[in-house]
This record gives sequence, C-alpha cells and structure tokens, in this order.
Amino acid sequence: MPSHEDFMRHAIALSRARMGDGDGGPFGAVVVMDGEIVGEGWNRVTGDNDPTAHAEVVAIRAACERLGVFSLEGAVIYTTCEPCPMCLAAVYWARLDRVYYANTAEDAARIGFDDVRLHREVALAPAQRELPSERLLADEASAVLDEWAADPDRLRY
Amino acid sequence: MPSHEDFMRHAIALSRARMGDGDGGPFGAVVVMDGEIVGEGWNRVTGDNDPTAHAEVVAIRAACERLGVFSLEGAVIYTTCEPCPMCLAAVYWARLDRVYYANTAEDAARIGFDDVRLHREVALAPAQRELPSERLLADEASAVLDEWAADPDRLRY
Repeated sequence: MPSHEDFMRHAIALSRARMGDGDGGPFGAVVVMDGEIVGEGWNRVTGDNDPTAHAEVVAIRAACERLGVFSLEGAVIYTTCEPCPMCLAAVYWARLDRVYYANTAEDAARIGFDDVRLHREVALAPAQRELPSERLLADEASAVLDEWAADPDRLRY
Repeated sequence: MPSHEDFMRHAIALSRARMGDGDGGPFGAVVVMDGEIVGEGWNRVTGDNDPTAHAEVVAIRAACERLGVFSLEGAVIYTTCEPCPMCLAAVYWARLDRVYYANTAEDAARIGFDDVRLHREVALAPAQRELPSERLLADEASAVLDEWAADPDRLRY
C-alpha cells in the first residue's frame, strides 16, 4: 500500500510536469479512496480558460466523474499547496475526510498568488470586502427556496 | 438595455426552472458583460455528479469558455444567493467587478444548506477547523514553486 508520502510525491510530480506546457500554475492534487488514486488534477486555469480549474477542483471533479458520485466521503486529498478558499470550500462540499498539503498559502503568496489576500477577503463581512456586492429582489428569490424546501422529492446534497 | 432587476429575474427563472429535474439545488446565476448575458449557470451538483457545480461556478466557466478568456474583468455576476466561500473565491479568481445577490447565506442555511457553517470554517485557522489537515514534504513541493518563479515565460493569471 502506498504511503502518504508516495501520494504527495505523485501530486508534486503532476505539478512539476504540467506547469511548463501552458496549462497553468505549479499546483497538483490527487484524491485517494481506499488506498487508490481515483482522481488527479493540476492547475489548468490558463490552458483551459477556466479560473476555477485549480488542481483540487480538477481532482475532485475527476474523482466524482470516475466514481459516479457527488460525495467523496471516505476519501482524502493530497495537494501540493494549502487549498485557497475556493478549493477549501470545494473540499467541504465534496465531503472529503482529510487534506494533506505541502506548501502553505504564504508560500504561494511569495511567488505572486493571491491566496493570502483571498483568505482575508472571504473572512470579512460582505460590506468590508474589496469586492462590491449589492442585494436585489430578495422576496422573489426567497420564494424559490421555499418551493424547493416544500418538495418532498428533492435530492439533498 | 436590461436593468439589474431584469438580469436577476433571469437568474431567478433559471433557479426555478432547473431545480425540479434533478440537476441540483434552487440556485441560478448569470454573468453579464457590456449589458449582455455571456454565461448562465444553475446548480448541477447532483445531476452532473460534481460538488463544485454551483450556479456561480457554472456561469463563470460558461462565460470564460464562450469568450475564450480566463479573466472576466469588466463583467459582473447576478446570483440568486449570496455566494458560498467556494463561489465567492471563484468570483475573485475570475476578476469579476461586482456581485448582485438576492438570498443571503442565512436564507440558504434555513432550508438546510451548509453555507453559514462553511463561511465560519473557512475563516478559521487550519488547526481550528473541523476538517483535519496535515503538512507533508514541504521542501520537495517548495522546490516546484521556485522553478515556476524562475521561469521568465510563465503565464500569470
């Protein structure tokens, strides 16, 4: 059975192999279930024109597609860098059990990635963020939530 | 030119139309550039087996694919619910200018979605979170960041 270090080395190898060919930044991740890699990912933001294609998101999507599930409960993720807030929340939504990481958000910031600023922004109240936001049509949208909640056949996730 | 309310009503209509057919929860979003909708999204978590397929992420990916870009600077997003931390960080990574939202995270929590808990978790220091995390092989992964930073041809994003 491969060790934690073996899985992390695999993620590191992905990050190194793919960063040179225009896919995106130097980040890799693998999702492991029952001692087996079920999803691989590397940053593909620039190659795929997809700002959400961080290594962890790509690995989670790949694992879910392969296993035909929307919950990865029982699986873990190895990522070469501490997840940004987008990827961290994706880990929660995917119900992963644990995160193994190598570089920190500060390491990523050192080479110019926004992770530290993002962690700070996301933690603020909406009115304190640099990103302007504005509320509209609360009543009309709220009615849809009530319709959903009243549907006994809704599929929870 | 359509009003802010017109675009939000479009997002609300998407959220209502798609929640009934198994795609996912009652959430919709549209990305607007220069007064035109360039990306639509609705929650497709259960239909697509993709825990990252929240309305905002789907709309951002659609807009980037349509425009052939990885930055949506100059565009705004209309979403029927205040973005969860994943979607909020995706908005930052996509460089969107502004968020218009209708329901709040508390409204979503009221019908059973984890957004409030997630906002709280993401804001905590790693050691304080419910999600266990562990650091491994920092030196080996850090070397890859240095290699990236030393590459004069790297494409920043």
